[in-house]
Amino acid sequence: MTEPRLTILADENIPALAPLFERFGELRTAPGRTLSRADLEGVDVLLVRSVTRVDEALLRGSRVRFVGTATIGTDHIDRAWLEQQGIAFSSAPGCNADGVVEYVLSSLLQLAAEQGFDLCSKTVGIVGVGNVGGRLQRRLQAMGVQVLCCDPPREAREGGDFVPLEQVLADADILALHTPLTEGGAWPTRHLLNADNLAQLKQGAILLNAGRGPVIDNVALLALARQRDDLTLVLDVWEHEPRVNPDLARRCAIATPHIAGYSLDGKIRGTWMLYCALCEYLGWTVNTPLEQVLPPAGVPALTLATADDLLTPARLVYDPYRDDRALRRTLGLGEAEQRQAFDRLRREYPERREYATLTVRVAGSDQAPQRLAAMGFATVDTGENDD
Amino acid sequence: MTEPRLTILADENIPALAPLFERFGELRTAPGRTLSRADLEGVDVLLVRSVTRVDEALLRGSRVRFVGTATIGTDHIDRAWLEQQGIAFSSAPGCNADGVVEYVLSSLLQLAAEQGFDLCSKTVGIVGVGNVGGRLQRRLQAMGVQVLCCDPPREAREGGDFVPLEQVLADADILALHTPLTEGGAWPTRHLLNADNLAQLKQGAILLNAGRGPVIDNVALLALARQRDDLTLVLDVWEHEPRVNPDLARRCAIATPHIAGYSLDGKIRGTWMLYCALCEYLGWTVNTPLEQVLPPAGVPALTLATADDLLTPARLVYDPYRDDRALRRTLGLGEAEQRQAFDRLRREYPERREYATLTVRVAGSDQAPQRLAAMGFATVDTGENDD
Ligand SMILES: NC(=O)c1ccc[n+]([C@@H]2O[C@H](COP(=O)([O-])OP(=O)(O)OC[C@H]3O[C@@H](n4cnc5c(N)ncnc54)[C@H](O)[C@@H]3O)[C@@H](O)[C@H]2O)c1
Ligand SMILES: NC(=O)c1ccc[n+]([C@@H]2O[C@H](COP(=O)([O-])OP(=O)(O)OC[C@H]3O[C@@H](n4cnc5c(N)ncnc54)[C@H](O)[C@@H]3O)[C@@H](O)[C@H]2O)c1
Repeated sequence: MTEPRLTILADENIPALAPLFERFGELRTAPGRTLSRADLEGVDVLLVRSVTRVDEALLRGSRVRFVGTATIGTDHIDRAWLEQQGIAFSSAPGCNADGVVEYVLSSLLQLAAEQGFDLCSKTVGIVGVGNVGGRLQRRLQAMGVQVLCCDPPREAREGGDFVPLEQVLADADILALHTPLTEGGAWPTRHLLNADNLAQLKQGAILLNAGRGPVIDNVALLALARQRDDLTLVLDVWEHEPRVNPDLARRCAIATPHIAGYSLDGKIRGTWMLYCALCEYLGWTVNTPLEQVLPPAGVPALTLATADDLLTPARLVYDPYRDDRALRRTLGLGEAEQRQAFDRLRREYPERREYATLTVRVAGSDQAPQRLAAMGFATVDTGENDD
Repeated sequence: MTEPRLTILADENIPALAPLFERFGELRTAPGRTLSRADLEGVDVLLVRSVTRVDEALLRGSRVRFVGTATIGTDHIDRAWLEQQGIAFSSAPGCNADGVVEYVLSSLLQLAAEQGFDLCSKTVGIVGVGNVGGRLQRRLQAMGVQVLCCDPPREAREGGDFVPLEQVLADADILALHTPLTEGGAWPTRHLLNADNLAQLKQGAILLNAGRGPVIDNVALLALARQRDDLTLVLDVWEHEPRVNPDLARRCAIATPHIAGYSLDGKIRGTWMLYCALCEYLGWTVNTPLEQVLPPAGVPALTLATADDLLTPARLVYDPYRDDRALRRTLGLGEAEQRQAFDRLRREYPERREYATLTVRVAGSDQAPQRLAAMGFATVDTGENDD
């Protein structure tokens, strides 16, 4: 039986298209920003990023029957209309979650070195335990870190070991926010942290937001930071981004332009998730593993003297200060230029890989480094001390 | 023949004393700041750092016949009096020169990545080509970088390929200052760079000073930096240090607290140079190589995908931004606190190793990485592609 040939149109900026989608038939590419109805002539499958609005105006009269977006967000897709038309749809939830987790781990290990604490003896509160927060929870727990999880929607659905926000505020040395931005419903997240509850942060707490900017009232946060020198702020997302309040950014230990999840691996994972979804839609087997389309690592291997050195491999693969410096250089610009610079830093983001691309060895050790493996590095047992 | 037993008194903060000096007899240690005549009872050999003033007041009436300082500077030693008394003296010139060279290389490779230039296609002007400048010259030339050398005292003594300062200013893309501070003589260096000649710096030039602060007129430099956005400044030394002009520091791409040479390897090399000098003084053979007293590397080995990646190993071993961040955090302090913080950053400097402690491999390459070897890394031929 020969497989049917499909015509696929994809945003030219989606990585790893050819190795994953050529098997389906004809692969065409086009700039996502200017993609229009004329480009859809004869197209069966449309693959976009967040710059392309997909709705009736674009698709009416086309023969497209599968739409994929290589993003976790779906605001640019009129899903109701697609469903009504019986057009299959797929996105890539969680594709960049590991990138965000590694942003958090690299940042916390940097701060641990600078402030002289041991991350593994701290209590980390995670607010929003979905794709990102859940992976962060698993890696931290595997490293031996105490974790408190706050996720009322999941708690209502699943029950289990969740704690209320007030308890996280009272008990966490480190607070990491990974909720979406929601306005309504039972647990809206806009200004989830505000003047009232921010004041409850523990003495010496670290507050990190790599979810969505408006989840923290940024005005209240700046006011608090001015009063409390003991707090350490790590912000990747901003209430009015691409506008960044320069005073707030200057008070952050680490301030970055919404790039926590921007690993190359995450972007390619997004394409690969659409490939899997299309295979499933067509009833074909997934025969190309993700690893096969990831480019080789720029830094394949590192040998450490001790398995306790978590920071060296973390900052070798991802050093958040690179992005912090780039954002800081824009803070003196006029407001319009600063907004443009923020978007440019995201658009022209340099290649970044994930921990799993680095193999970490420990010299002369007879066991695989358990905490480094828990962090996500590839590890090998050198076996030098084996009997 | 049995070797004579000597009594040695050393500053307790000199590293690697025991493995190098116990062979000579009895080794005593004392805090260098409070070392006094009473401590010198029965002492033959005195080993100090810059915090101990060594002069007639300290040594009169003692039986000390050899004084060593584990530093490159000798301002704290009354050398004339020692000579007059027939007391042998030794210091450790150049012991920390490799540390400074690596500060320069790591800084320039960081800037190259950020500004998008290739270091090996630039012209570097070195002003002051002694222990530091000479080693920098050799490493850069071995990497294939064009180097211009300016050192009128050496030129007058030796002749050779030197150029005048004006030519360096006119032709160098990168200017690195490594002169001592001198007030008199034929070529005084105080304000060697001043309002007049700083204006001659090439468009887009990088100016780096890791020699002595007052060699650049810092007021003129700040005024120039305010006018010329094209210039990039890297300053490790400051005209009135420990006071740092915060405005000047904020205009630097990299600003650090006089730590360019502060590698652990350099400090131990200083002790080892005194050990060699004492051996020579006594007519004994040097039987402990430096390598034997250096602690093992924290990061023994790294594998790169490409031999062109010079920055990754450079910043793995020494990332100047760590020190830059530490200094920047002190710039908002009051003047007195800022001075104290500067001294504290130097006194409590974290352990730092030199490039030679890291072995760099290139995956799948059939040749040793020549430029990485030129930079000073240990390299190995993986031989994977050998016939
Ligand atoms: N900074 C970046 O580069 C980056 C990258 C990826 C994701 N994100 C953002 O991070 C957020 C989380 O991403 P995700 O993929 O994990 O989403 P997700 O939907 O998988 O998980 C979000 C979780 O938050 C929980 N939640 C909702 N309201 C809550 C509340 N009031 N209190 C506590 N928890 C609540 C949900 O129940 C869910 O479990 C999203 O807003 C996403 O846009 C940012
Ligand atoms: N930043 C640091 O951590 C650090 C570390 C080590 C050395 N240093 C400083 O760096 C400087 C150089 O150290 P070194 O060990 O190479 O000293 P060095 O004496 O070996 O070399 C200095 C060179 O400068 C030359 N010179 C003198 N006057 C000059 C002039 N007017 N123009 C050009 N060249 C001139 C000399 O001829 C000599 O070759 C010293 O001042 C030292 O204190 C700083």
